[in-house]
Amino acid sequence: MPRILRLAAAQMGPNQRADSRESILARMIALLEEAAGKGAKLVVFPELAFTTFFPRWLIEGEELDQYYEAAMPNPQVQPLFDRARELGVGFYVGYAERTADGKRFNSAITTGPDGSIVGKYRKVHLPGSVEPRVGDRFQQLEKRYFEYGDLGFPAFRGPAEWGAPVMGMLVCNDRRWPEAWRVYGLQGVELMVMGYNSAAYDPNGGTTENEAIRTFHSTLAAQSNAYMNATWAVSVAKAGNEDGSGLIGGSVIVDPNGVVVAQAQTLGDEVLVADCDLDQVRQGKEKMFNFAAHRRPEHYRRITEQVGAEPPA
Amino acid sequence: MPRILRLAAAQMGPNQRADSRESILARMIALLEEAAGKGAKLVVFPELAFTTFFPRWLIEGEELDQYYEAAMPNPQVQPLFDRARELGVGFYVGYAERTADGKRFNSAITTGPDGSIVGKYRKVHLPGSVEPRVGDRFQQLEKRYFEYGDLGFPAFRGPAEWGAPVMGMLVCNDRRWPEAWRVYGLQGVELMVMGYNSAAYDPNGGTTENEAIRTFHSTLAAQSNAYMNATWAVSVAKAGNEDGSGLIGGSVIVDPNGVVVAQAQTLGDEVLVADCDLDQVRQGKEKMFNFAAHRRPEHYRRITEQVGAEPPA
Repeated sequence: MPRILRLAAAQMGPNQRADSRESILARMIALLEEAAGKGAKLVVFPELAFTTFFPRWLIEGEELDQYYEAAMPNPQVQPLFDRARELGVGFYVGYAERTADGKRFNSAITTGPDGSIVGKYRKVHLPGSVEPRVGDRFQQLEKRYFEYGDLGFPAFRGPAEWGAPVMGMLVCNDRRWPEAWRVYGLQGVELMVMGYNSAAYDPNGGTTENEAIRTFHSTLAAQSNAYMNATWAVSVAKAGNEDGSGLIGGSVIVDPNGVVVAQAQTLGDEVLVADCDLDQVRQGKEKMFNFAAHRRPEHYRRITEQVGAEPPA
Repeated sequence: MPRILRLAAAQMGPNQRADSRESILARMIALLEEAAGKGAKLVVFPELAFTTFFPRWLIEGEELDQYYEAAMPNPQVQPLFDRARELGVGFYVGYAERTADGKRFNSAITTGPDGSIVGKYRKVHLPGSVEPRVGDRFQQLEKRYFEYGDLGFPAFRGPAEWGAPVMGMLVCNDRRWPEAWRVYGLQGVELMVMGYNSAAYDPNGGTTENEAIRTFHSTLAAQSNAYMNATWAVSVAKAGNEDGSGLIGGSVIVDPNGVVVAQAQTLGDEVLVADCDLDQVRQGKEKMFNFAAHRRPEHYRRITEQVGAEPPA
């Protein structure tokens, strides 16, 4: 029986700091309804979808606390969960998580068609710095505001209604790290879902990157890692001018050949839909990337035994 | 002082089984001279550059032995070494190696401007099978004809005349494996050189791949792994109709952003040249891919602890 899953990428335009949570949620519900109207069974939203990308500022105390969700769902986001369950549509969404014992993570969940949470992920590859850079208008303070994800890269089985795909989640910067994809690949992943907020300039203070090259990088990372792990991938932006700081768009749905089958054309709210034949992963998994036949881990030890680069003398 | 190295990719058209070694070497020397005439200091030839891609057939005994080099250099290839030394040009070349104790590898060397061998590599990711597939016109018998490379992924310093770049070599199928690139990345690689012979159809017997998608895969692997390891990369084909079997072209020189700066337009002998600013790697190595700051090896353990995929229940 063919396993065809209709997927949607729900790219979001900017969430301004002054926007109410209600207005943002209303946009997300509108995107969900549009995707469901087009027949999608799973809708992928961006990283930190409910708020502005607050790590661009140094913020403290109560002002900072308001950006975190103390439970998922919670009353502020419940209408999205309710509408999704009514429509029988699952979703991936990224959010700032604060645990009962006060830990903070850059997290994502995936829900099934019945509204239950079927997968949970905490971002491992936090970019940026703990301390703000002096003199810069915008910061990248994820290392200050979040702890490193402590769940690893946990693949899970999607619902039977979707064809029970092996699924994996990433958040933003994770998508540039082939180690993250490979750990999912080694769990037989068939569908990767991820959201991002990527600056249209180098948020680390470099001067050689612009919006065009950073959008190219984002697409390249999704295409190549989908190909090299023989998986479908959905990579979704929050885009546009958010509180005076540019975010790239370029949301994509990519097939297991690394071919882009749908790509956002705007920097605003935009729904992409594609029918994904999950069995298309078999060519890669059984031939070129038959890991059991071809991998040679005895030569990969540096990957786990060292952190930074160690150049020859 | 800027470190600008002018590189050449010396794509080769097919080497027919009936071609003499002398005629093949004459073509390689012509490509070397063309590259040197354009100012290149390092010329990258393909995998198994001195012969046809013999693993496409089941061959035994003396007929098979003739494809291997018992020493490097040796009298059959000495004119290439001599001409390169005269021109002050180094080169990468792939060849079938037979050691004094009878081991066989799919190997590559890099020579410096004085003709000395400065780097040696033996292909780790051997594709194909040990036993021929019944009924297929062409085989992929690398696992029969070669042992797995036993040198790992040994980065080395190129000559001072080239700016002393940290270099790494791969051979063909290796370029599709992010583990191989990352092990070099973890040695601070600045310039990756590799040759390939990639069939224009799926040599593993799949039916969904054609020349266009396989050329796309080849380019995508070079671009993305160059980007994710912040390195220059030169990836060079033996191309065209070789003994009735198609080989893709698509040789490329790729910058550390993953951008193709030169690409072959033919399936024949063709020289590509580009000026590579080796310090362009610094943006990636110091910012996005600052490994020491951002990698989390505690979550990568599957990469070295398992070989094949292990899907969730």
